[in-house]
Amino acid sequence: MKSDLDAIMQDRKLDAFIVFGNAENNPPMYYLTGGGHVSHATIIKKRGEAPVYFYNDMERDEAAKSGLKTVPFSKYDINALLKQAEGNALLASAMRYQQMFEELGVTSGRVGVYGHYDVSSIFGTLNHLQTLMPALEFVGEAREDSIFLRAMETKDENEVERIRKMGKVTTAVVAKTREYLTSCDVREDEVLLKEDGTPLTVGDVHSKIRLWVSEHGAELPSGFIFAIGRDAGVPHSAGNPADLMRLGQTIVFDIYPAEAGGGYYYDFTRTWTLGYATPEAQALFDQVKEIYDTLNDNFDLNVAFKDYQRMTCEFFEGKGHQTPLNTKAPIEGYVHSLGHGVGLNIHERPFSGFTAGDDQRLKPGVIITSEPGLYYPEKGMGFRIEDTLWVRPDGVMEKLADYPYDFVLPMKKWKK
Amino acid sequence: MKSDLDAIMQDRKLDAFIVFGNAENNPPMYYLTGGGHVSHATIIKKRGEAPVYFYNDMERDEAAKSGLKTVPFSKYDINALLKQAEGNALLASAMRYQQMFEELGVTSGRVGVYGHYDVSSIFGTLNHLQTLMPALEFVGEAREDSIFLRAMETKDENEVERIRKMGKVTTAVVAKTREYLTSCDVREDEVLLKEDGTPLTVGDVHSKIRLWVSEHGAELPSGFIFAIGRDAGVPHSAGNPADLMRLGQTIVFDIYPAEAGGGYYYDFTRTWTLGYATPEAQALFDQVKEIYDTLNDNFDLNVAFKDYQRMTCEFFEGKGHQTPLNTKAPIEGYVHSLGHGVGLNIHERPFSGFTAGDDQRLKPGVIITSEPGLYYPEKGMGFRIEDTLWVRPDGVMEKLADYPYDFVLPMKKWKK
Repeated sequence: MKSDLDAIMQDRKLDAFIVFGNAENNPPMYYLTGGGHVSHATIIKKRGEAPVYFYNDMERDEAAKSGLKTVPFSKYDINALLKQAEGNALLASAMRYQQMFEELGVTSGRVGVYGHYDVSSIFGTLNHLQTLMPALEFVGEAREDSIFLRAMETKDENEVERIRKMGKVTTAVVAKTREYLTSCDVREDEVLLKEDGTPLTVGDVHSKIRLWVSEHGAELPSGFIFAIGRDAGVPHSAGNPADLMRLGQTIVFDIYPAEAGGGYYYDFTRTWTLGYATPEAQALFDQVKEIYDTLNDNFDLNVAFKDYQRMTCEFFEGKGHQTPLNTKAPIEGYVHSLGHGVGLNIHERPFSGFTAGDDQRLKPGVIITSEPGLYYPEKGMGFRIEDTLWVRPDGVMEKLADYPYDFVLPMKKWKK
Repeated sequence: MKSDLDAIMQDRKLDAFIVFGNAENNPPMYYLTGGGHVSHATIIKKRGEAPVYFYNDMERDEAAKSGLKTVPFSKYDINALLKQAEGNALLASAMRYQQMFEELGVTSGRVGVYGHYDVSSIFGTLNHLQTLMPALEFVGEAREDSIFLRAMETKDENEVERIRKMGKVTTAVVAKTREYLTSCDVREDEVLLKEDGTPLTVGDVHSKIRLWVSEHGAELPSGFIFAIGRDAGVPHSAGNPADLMRLGQTIVFDIYPAEAGGGYYYDFTRTWTLGYATPEAQALFDQVKEIYDTLNDNFDLNVAFKDYQRMTCEFFEGKGHQTPLNTKAPIEGYVHSLGHGVGLNIHERPFSGFTAGDDQRLKPGVIITSEPGLYYPEKGMGFRIEDTLWVRPDGVMEKLADYPYDFVLPMKKWKK
C-alpha cells in the first residue's frame, strides 16, 4: 500500500526518489497524484517526507487537485539555464533538477528514478545530473520489482472498490456483447449478419465494444482482445478485423478496461462459441474450466502464486498438452503463466511465472487474475477463462465481478 | 520523413539506435512498426540498414504485420542469463541486449536510445549494458530535438491523409456537441437542462464527447478540454465535471483525438458562449479572431514558426494584454506559445516558443497548429481558436478540416 513506500525505500537504501512525466498512463505518477490531466510534471520525495509536485504553470488547477505540496516549474529560469548550458537542453534540464534537489536538501545518497516517459531525454538528463551531483547515486530498478510495484502489490479498500466498479463495467459490456451476437441473423453458411444484411466482422464487434466501454465512462488504454478461430489460438492476437463472425468457432474475449484518465484496471476473459461447439472444442473447453475450478478450490492465503502455475501445468500435461513446465516457449497447449496482479498497471505484482520470486504470494490485499487457457492456432481454436480475484484481509478469495461461464451461446434466430 | 532517418543519424553521428517498449502510446515504436497491439518489444537499427524487430512470442502475429525483419525474444535464454546474473534482472536484461547487439554487428560507436517506456528499468539496464559493452556509447537526446521528432517533422502524403481523416472525425464530434448543447432546455436561472429535467454538468458533456469520439473509432489518449467560465480561463484545465452548463459564459472546447491504438492526432479548439455574450467577452473574442485571421494571412513558407509567436505577442500587447514577450510565465492575457507540430505526438516539431531553434520553420510537409488565445480566470473567461494546418509542398497553407468560428451559439428553445 502507498503507506508502505517509506519502509520499502528504507529496504532498498533509497534516500529519495524522483518520478518523471505526465499523469496519464504513468502509474507511479498517478499513484502519487491521484491522476488528472497533467502533461508534464516531476515529483521528488525524500524518505520520511511528503512528496513535492513540480508542475507546469498552465496546469496549476490539475496539480492543486492532488493535495500535494506543489512548486511551479516557472520558479526556475530555464532560459537562463539554457544560456548557461550553451543551448544544451539536456544539460539545462539537469541543472534545473539540481536546483530542485538542492532546495529539498537531497545532496547525497541514493535516488531512485521512475516514471513512464520519454526514455531518451531522461537517460540523457540523468547522465548530466550524475556529473553535476556526484554525491548522488541515481538508481534504476527492474519494473517488476520496483518500489512502486512493491507498494502497489497490496491494495487498500478504496483501491479494491475502484477495481470492483471497473468489474461491473466489464461484465456489463460483456453482457451487451453477448446479447448483440446472439440476436444476429445467420446466413446459410453460418456467417452472422448485421442489421443491414451484410456479414458481421470482428472489426464491427471491436467498434461496438469500444463504444460500449466508452458509454460507461471507462477506457481501453491497453486495448482488448476479441478474436475468433485461429486468432483465438494466439493468446495476444487482438483479433483480425476482417474476419467474419461464424457459428461453431471459438471466440476469446479478453477485456481489460480502466477508469478514464489512466486509472485502475479490471481484467476478464470468457471463451464462447456461437450456436454449437465441435466435440473437440467442447472437450478442450471443459479441461480449461476444470482446472479453473480446481484452482479456485485450492487458492490459499500466503501461498506462492507460482505454485498454482505449477499445478496448472501439471494438470494440462496430464491431459497431453505442452506447457512452460517442460517446454521452452511453447506455441501450442498452455503457453503462458497463470495470472498477474492488477491495479494501475494491467500487469503488476504478484506474478506467477516460474521466474517470479518466492515472495510473490497470495498475501492479504493482493488482487490477481486467474486465467488458465489452451491454444491450438493450427486447429483454429483457443480457450481462456479469467476473473480478477481479491485476497481479502480475512483470507477469503473474492471474485470481484460475477459472470457466467457458458461456452456455447444459443443463437436466438438459429437452430442446428 | 521516415526516409530521412539515416541522414539524420549521420548528422548526429549515431551508428545505431534502439527503441524500447510497447507500440501503443510510444511514438518512435509506432513510427517504425505501424502500431499494433504489442505489449513488449525492442527495435534495433544500424545506420543504413533495415530495423530489426524483437518481439514476444505470444505477439508474433502483431509483430509480423509490421513487415519488418522479426526475431522472437525466446531466442535468448533469459532464465540462463538470470542464473548467470545471480538473479539481477537488470543485468540479465543487459546481457540479452548485448547478445542482440553483437548478433547485429553493433559492437562499437554511438547508439541512440529511445522509446516511451518505464524509465527506471531502462536506465538501470543501460547502466549495466554500458559496463558490458564499453566500446558502445549510449546517447540520450532531448525529446524536442530527437532524431525521431526531426524525421517526424515533415509528413508524407499518407500521414497527411490520416491526419485529415482525424480532422473529419474531430469536426463531426464538435458539430454533434454543438447540436446537443443548443437543443437543451434552459432553466430560469440560465442553467441548461438534460432530457430528464436535471441540470446539465460539464461532466455530462465530457461523457458524451468521449462516446461520440468512440463512435467514430477514434480515441482520446491525451484527454481533451471542455471547460466553462473560470476553468476556460486556465489553458490546460480539463474542465470541472461538477460545473453546471450556463448561458453567457465562455466555453473552451479543445479536442485532440487520435487514431485508435495510439496513431495520428488532430488538434482543434473553438470558443463558444451559449445564448448570448457579454460585451467584454465579445470584445476579447474578437481580438483572438482578429489575430487568428491575421496570422493566416501572413503565414509564409520557410519562415521561422516563432516569428509568428512574436507577431501574436505584439498584437496582444498592443491591446493591453500580458504576453510571454515581456512577462515571465504570465497567468493572465496570452499565456502560451502560438502552436506546435502535430503527428504521432500531440506536441512535436516545429515548436513556436521563443526558445525554439531558428530551424523550426514552416517547411513544406510540416503540420502545425495555430492557436492564439486570451485567458482571464479571475474574470471567469477564456478564449482560444485553433486549427491544424498543413504546409503543402507547393507552399500553400491548407487547413485540414473546416469548421465555423461562431462565438455565440443561439439556443433553439431560448431567447434573450
